[in-house]
Amino acid sequence: MSVRSAADLALRKENLRRLLSPRNIAVIGGDAAAETVRQCRRVGFAGQIWPVHPSRSEIEGLACHRSVADLPEAPDAALVAVPRETTVEVVRQLAALGAGGAVCHASGFAEHDQAGAELQESLVDAAGDMTLIGPNCIGTLNYLDGAALWPDQHGGTRVDRGVGVITQSGNIGQNLTMQRRSLPLAQLVTVGNGALTGVADLVDAMLDDPRITAIGLHLEGVDDAAALSRAALRALRRSVPVVVLKSGTSEIGAQVNLGHTSSLAGSDVLCDVLFRRLGMARVHRVETFVETLKFLHVRGSLDGGAIASASCSGGEASLIADLAEHNGLQLPEFPAGTEQQLRELLGERVSVANPLDYHTYIWGDLDAQTACFAAMLDAGFDCHLLLVDLPRDDRCAGEAWSTTVDAFRAAHRSTGGPACVVSSLPEGLPEPVAESLLREGIAPMQGIADCLAAISAAAEIGAAQRDAHSVQPLEVPAAPSRTTRQLDEAEGKRVLAERGLAIPDGLVVDAPRAPGAAAELGFPVVVKALSAELAHKSDVGGVRVGLASPKEVADAVADMSALSDRFLVERLVDDVVAELIVGVRRDPQFGPSLTFGAGGVLVELVRDSATLLLPTTRAAISGALRGLRSWPLLAGFRGPAADVDAVVDAIAAIGRYAAADERLVELDVNPLLARRRGAVAVDVLVREGKDAR
Amino acid sequence: MSVRSAADLALRKENLRRLLSPRNIAVIGGDAAAETVRQCRRVGFAGQIWPVHPSRSEIEGLACHRSVADLPEAPDAALVAVPRETTVEVVRQLAALGAGGAVCHASGFAEHDQAGAELQESLVDAAGDMTLIGPNCIGTLNYLDGAALWPDQHGGTRVDRGVGVITQSGNIGQNLTMQRRSLPLAQLVTVGNGALTGVADLVDAMLDDPRITAIGLHLEGVDDAAALSRAALRALRRSVPVVVLKSGTSEIGAQVNLGHTSSLAGSDVLCDVLFRRLGMARVHRVETFVETLKFLHVRGSLDGGAIASASCSGGEASLIADLAEHNGLQLPEFPAGTEQQLRELLGERVSVANPLDYHTYIWGDLDAQTACFAAMLDAGFDCHLLLVDLPRDDRCAGEAWSTTVDAFRAAHRSTGGPACVVSSLPEGLPEPVAESLLREGIAPMQGIADCLAAISAAAEIGAAQRDAHSVQPLEVPAAPSRTTRQLDEAEGKRVLAERGLAIPDGLVVDAPRAPGAAAELGFPVVVKALSAELAHKSDVGGVRVGLASPKEVADAVADMSALSDRFLVERLVDDVVAELIVGVRRDPQFGPSLTFGAGGVLVELVRDSATLLLPTTRAAISGALRGLRSWPLLAGFRGPAADVDAVVDAIAAIGRYAAADERLVELDVNPLLARRRGAVAVDVLVREGKDAR
Repeated sequence: MSVRSAADLALRKENLRRLLSPRNIAVIGGDAAAETVRQCRRVGFAGQIWPVHPSRSEIEGLACHRSVADLPEAPDAALVAVPRETTVEVVRQLAALGAGGAVCHASGFAEHDQAGAELQESLVDAAGDMTLIGPNCIGTLNYLDGAALWPDQHGGTRVDRGVGVITQSGNIGQNLTMQRRSLPLAQLVTVGNGALTGVADLVDAMLDDPRITAIGLHLEGVDDAAALSRAALRALRRSVPVVVLKSGTSEIGAQVNLGHTSSLAGSDVLCDVLFRRLGMARVHRVETFVETLKFLHVRGSLDGGAIASASCSGGEASLIADLAEHNGLQLPEFPAGTEQQLRELLGERVSVANPLDYHTYIWGDLDAQTACFAAMLDAGFDCHLLLVDLPRDDRCAGEAWSTTVDAFRAAHRSTGGPACVVSSLPEGLPEPVAESLLREGIAPMQGIADCLAAISAAAEIGAAQRDAHSVQPLEVPAAPSRTTRQLDEAEGKRVLAERGLAIPDGLVVDAPRAPGAAAELGFPVVVKALSAELAHKSDVGGVRVGLASPKEVADAVADMSALSDRFLVERLVDDVVAELIVGVRRDPQFGPSLTFGAGGVLVELVRDSATLLLPTTRAAISGALRGLRSWPLLAGFRGPAADVDAVVDAIAAIGRYAAADERLVELDVNPLLARRRGAVAVDVLVREGKDAR
Repeated sequence: MSVRSAADLALRKENLRRLLSPRNIAVIGGDAAAETVRQCRRVGFAGQIWPVHPSRSEIEGLACHRSVADLPEAPDAALVAVPRETTVEVVRQLAALGAGGAVCHASGFAEHDQAGAELQESLVDAAGDMTLIGPNCIGTLNYLDGAALWPDQHGGTRVDRGVGVITQSGNIGQNLTMQRRSLPLAQLVTVGNGALTGVADLVDAMLDDPRITAIGLHLEGVDDAAALSRAALRALRRSVPVVVLKSGTSEIGAQVNLGHTSSLAGSDVLCDVLFRRLGMARVHRVETFVETLKFLHVRGSLDGGAIASASCSGGEASLIADLAEHNGLQLPEFPAGTEQQLRELLGERVSVANPLDYHTYIWGDLDAQTACFAAMLDAGFDCHLLLVDLPRDDRCAGEAWSTTVDAFRAAHRSTGGPACVVSSLPEGLPEPVAESLLREGIAPMQGIADCLAAISAAAEIGAAQRDAHSVQPLEVPAAPSRTTRQLDEAEGKRVLAERGLAIPDGLVVDAPRAPGAAAELGFPVVVKALSAELAHKSDVGGVRVGLASPKEVADAVADMSALSDRFLVERLVDDVVAELIVGVRRDPQFGPSLTFGAGGVLVELVRDSATLLLPTTRAAISGALRGLRSWPLLAGFRGPAADVDAVVDAIAAIGRYAAADERLVELDVNPLLARRRGAVAVDVLVREGKDAR
C-alpha cells in the first residue's frame, strides 16, 4: 500500500464506516447476490438494495441494473460476487461512482498463486479511496442495522448492542453465528485476504461504534503487528475488551495457516507476547471464545479474580475449586458478616465456606434461596456464581430448578452484586433462560471450565486496562540489510559498554603481551581467542578460564595460536549468584524482541525464559524476571541474593539498544553474570547488517 | 467391615447384582417412595413395585404394605427413604426377609458427625449379607432394565446397551442424566457414603454385565486403592475402558472433598499415579467426561493416536492441528495412494494434506463428497474425523450441511473406516443427528477439544490394554507403627547395601582413628558426623567433603566433636554424570510410593520427578526416568552418558525394599549419584517403625 495522506486515511476510514453500516447496498452477481438479498431481508435491512446483473431483469423481486454505472447513486456498500477478473473491473466502477466499499467474495487472489497476487494488487489499485473487505471472504454481517453483505446462510438476528467479531476464517465466522448460547452478536466480518482492510482497521472501526461492547478476534496470523498494537491499545484505553482465538500453536497448525491465507506471518510465541502486552485475552477453544465474549458483554472487565460460588452439591464445589485454581482465580473466605448471615440462613447442618455447598435443605424454597443468594451476592467479590444445570424439559418438570434461578434473579435485583449462572454441561442452560438472565445483567455461562476461563480473561483485561497508561504500541523498524557481519567479542563488548552495560576488565593483546596484560589485570584471568569468525569459541578450544599465573597465560595463548593472533585477556568475574542469558532477535512482523532467562543447564532443559517486544520498560522486565521458574536463584533461594536492579538495568539497556539501533540483527549475551553487586556481560555475540559501521 | 468368607462374598456379589438389576422393587417411605414409583414407570419398569408405608393405603395407585414384614416376598431391591434412625431398622427387616439390597437415601451418617458414624456402623451390621448403596445418596438408575431406585427426576430413557457411571456426587449424577449429547447411559449409581458398597464393587458388578460398554467414574477420593486397582485391572483385561473425572487437584477442592463424603482420602497425585498405572483415562471437565464415554461406547479403545481430519475450512484444520498436538495425537501424512485419490477428486485448487481442508468446491455435491470422504476413511488411521457444524434449523435451511453428513455416512458404510463427526461448538451436532450417527457406529463428537481429548484417552486406554499382562494391582500393607526411629547414616547405608545398592567405600570410626581410616580408603574423602538425631547434617557442619590429607581429616573431626564421637569416613565418589534423588513415602490408602527425579537445584525449582506405586517393574522405572525433563542429563546431553541400567537397578531395589518391608516408613537417598559406571547412594535417610529391628 502506498503512503497516504491523513485526509486520504480519514476518507478511507469514513468509507469503511459506510461499508460496515450502510444505508443502501448494491449486490453484484447472480445466485450469490440473490442470497444476499434474502439474508438482508431476513435480518430486516431497511435501506435500498440494488441488484446489478447484465442479463437478469430481476433478482428476488428487485429490478436489476445493467451495470454499476446505471446505479441510482453511489452505494455505501456493495457485495461483489463475480469471477475474480471481473471483480477488479466492478470495483473500479464502484470507486469511480464514489461507493463506500465493496465486499469481494471471489477467491483465486494472493492466497492462490503469483498471478492471483498480481490481480490482488490491481484490485487494491482499482479501489482508490474506497474500502474493500476480502477478497476470498464470505462477507460482513451487521446485526445492529440489519445489513448482511453475506451471500450464504447465517444464524444471527437483530440486536441493539453486542459483540463484534473479526475472523480470518469464513467457516468459523459462519459457525459462530449458529451458536445457541445467547451471545448477542452485533457485527461479524470475515477479512479473507485482507488486501486493503486488515484486522487492525476493523478493530478501529468497531471501537467507533458505541453499540459494540467487546471485540473477538479469530486469527491465523498477525500481518501488521504495529497496527494491531495501536488498535488494541486504543481498545484498552476505551475499556473495550478484546479476546483472541489464535491458531498456529502447533507446527502443523502454523503450516496450515501459512498455506491458507495470503497475508500471514509471525511466530505464535511473539503473537502471544503481543497479546499479553496489550491486554488481549487469549483463548484456545471456540467454546471458550464464545463464553468469554458473552461474559465480557454482560459484565465487562473485572477488578480482580476473587470469586464466590454456590451450588447445592459438594461435587460441583470441588470442581469449581479445581478449575478456579487452574485459571488463576481465587476463592477467598467469605467476610465475617456474610459467613454469619449464611450460617443463620442455612442452619448448622451446612458448613459455610467458599465455594459454598448450600445443600438441598432449601431446595424449592424461593424465599430461603433468595436470602441465601443475596447474602452471597453482597460479599463484595469480583463475581458471584450460581452453579445449576436446568433439567431436560422434554423428560422432567423443572419447577424446583426454575425456583433456584428465580431466587438468584431476585437476589441479584436486590443486591446488584456482579453475578453469573453457570451450568456444568453447556446444554444445562437452555437458550431462553440464558437470554432472560442476560437481559437482567446476569452472565449466563455454559460449562464450568469455560466460565472460569472467561472470568479469568475479564480479570486479566481489567488489570491491563488499569495499567494502560504505561503500555506503548510496538515499533517495528524496517528490516536491516540481509547480509550481516558478526562483531568479534571485544567489539561486541565495547558496543554494550557504550550502552551502559558492565563488562569484565580486559585488554586486547597479541600473544607476547598476554602474560603482562594478565598481570596488570590481576589473576585469575580468562583468555579468549579473538575472531569474528569464531561463533562458538569454547567448542574449538578458544576459551581458557581461571588461569592463575603468567606461565599459564603464555601456555594458553600458545595453544590457541592456530585460532587467532589477537586475544582478549579478562579478569575472572567472581561473586557470581546466578547465570542468565539475554538475546535479541528481529522478526519482520514484530520487530526486535528481547528474550532472557536462566543460563546453564536450566535454560536448555526447562526453557525457562521470557520474551518481550520493544520498546519495553524496566517494570515489564522486572515483572517477567520474577515470573521465571529460576527467579528464586536470583532472589537468594540458596545463598545470597543477586543485584536484581543491576540485572534489570542490563536487560533494559540491551532492550533500548535493540529498539534504537536498526543495524542490530541478533545479539546474545551468554552468560550475563548476576553478582551480589552488579551484573556483568561475560560473553557477547553481536550480528549487524553488513552496511553498518 | 469384618473379614468374610468367599461364600459370603459371592452371596453379597449376587445380592448386588439383584439390587442393580431387580425383578421387583420395594419402595419404603412417603413422597420419595411415590416419586420412585413414578420414575420407575417413566422408564418402563416391568416388574412388581411394592410400596411400604405404615399409614398410607396407597402410593401412586399401588396398595401399601404396612411394613417390610408384610411384603409378599423378599424384594431384589428396596428404596429406603425414611429418617436415618428408621433406616437401620428397615434395613434389618429387609435383610431378615432375604432382600437383595437397599438404596439408603437418608443423610446424617458418617458424613455428618461421630453419632452418624456409629449409626452407619449399625446400618452395615443390620444389612448382614444383603448389599447397600449409600447412605446419603440419591440412588441407582438402570436404563437397561428400567429400574429407577431414584426418588427424584432424571433425564435418561431406556437403552439396550451403553455406559455405566459411578459417582460420589448425587447432583453430578443427576446432571449427567440430563445431557443432550446422545450418550447412551445404561446405568448410573451414586455411591453416597459407600458404607458397604464402594466404587470398586460397583466397577466389578458393571464388568459382569456385557451390555455395559465403558465405565465412567466421578470421584472425590479413593478410599480403597488396592480394591480399585484390582477392579480396574479386571476392566483392563476385559477391554472395558474406564474414564475418571476426579476432583481435588487444588487445595480448596481437596478440602471440599474431605468435608463432603465420609470415606475420602488419598493425595490427588497418588490417585493420578494409580489411574495411569491401570489405564484409567483421567479427564478434568464434565463435558470431556461425557464425550470420552460416548467415543468409547462407539469406538472402544484405539490402537494408536494417528488421526485424519477433513473440514471445508483451513481455520478449522488449523485448530484441529493445534488441539491434536496438545492432546498428544498425530496427524501423519496421507499414504501415497490416498493422497493421489484425493488430488484427483478435489482438483488442483485444493492442496491435499492432513488435516485436509477440502474447500467448498464440492459442497452440496453428495457423490463428490462421498468419494472424498471414502478416500480419507480408507487411509487406515486410528480415527478419521469430519468436522462440521450443523446450522441453526430455526433460522437456516440446512440441506447442504445434511448432504455433507450423508456423504460421510455413505463413505463410512462403504469403507468401515473408524469415524467420527465433530462439531466445533458442542451445539453444532443436534441430538437427533448425533443419535442417528451413533446408531451407525460413527461417534458424534461435540466440541473439537473434547473430541480430541476423547480420542487421546481411547489411545491411552488401548496402550494400557495391550500392556495389561504386565500390570499388577496395588499392594497396600497395613500401616506401620506410628512411632518411628531414624537410622543413622551408616545403618541406613548398610540396609541399602544388603538390598543390593552400591554405597561409597567407608568406615565407621572414632575421632582418633579417622585419619588412618581415610588413608586406608584413599584420598580424597568425605567425613560425616554419625548420629540418628542429625537429619540435616550439612546444615550444622556435620559433613566435610573433599578432604585430601590425614591432617585435614583430623582437623575436620576435631571441628565436629560437639556433634558426635562417631564418624563415617568415605572415599569421595568421582566420575559423576548426574545427581538424582530417590524417596519412599507411605500413604494409608495407597501404601508405599517411590518418587525419583533430578537432584540439586533442578528438582527444587522444576519439581522434576516421577512417582510410582508399588510393586513396580524395571520397565516402569525406566519409562518414568525417560519421561523426566532432566533425562537428557542422564542420556549424555552435555558429556558422557550415565549408567542408566545401574540407576534403574538402584531405584528398583529401593522399590522392592519398600514393597517388601512393612517396617519402612520413609526413605530418602539424596543424592543417588549416577556415574559413567554404576550408581552410588551417597546420602541416605531411613525411618522405620519403632518396633522394628
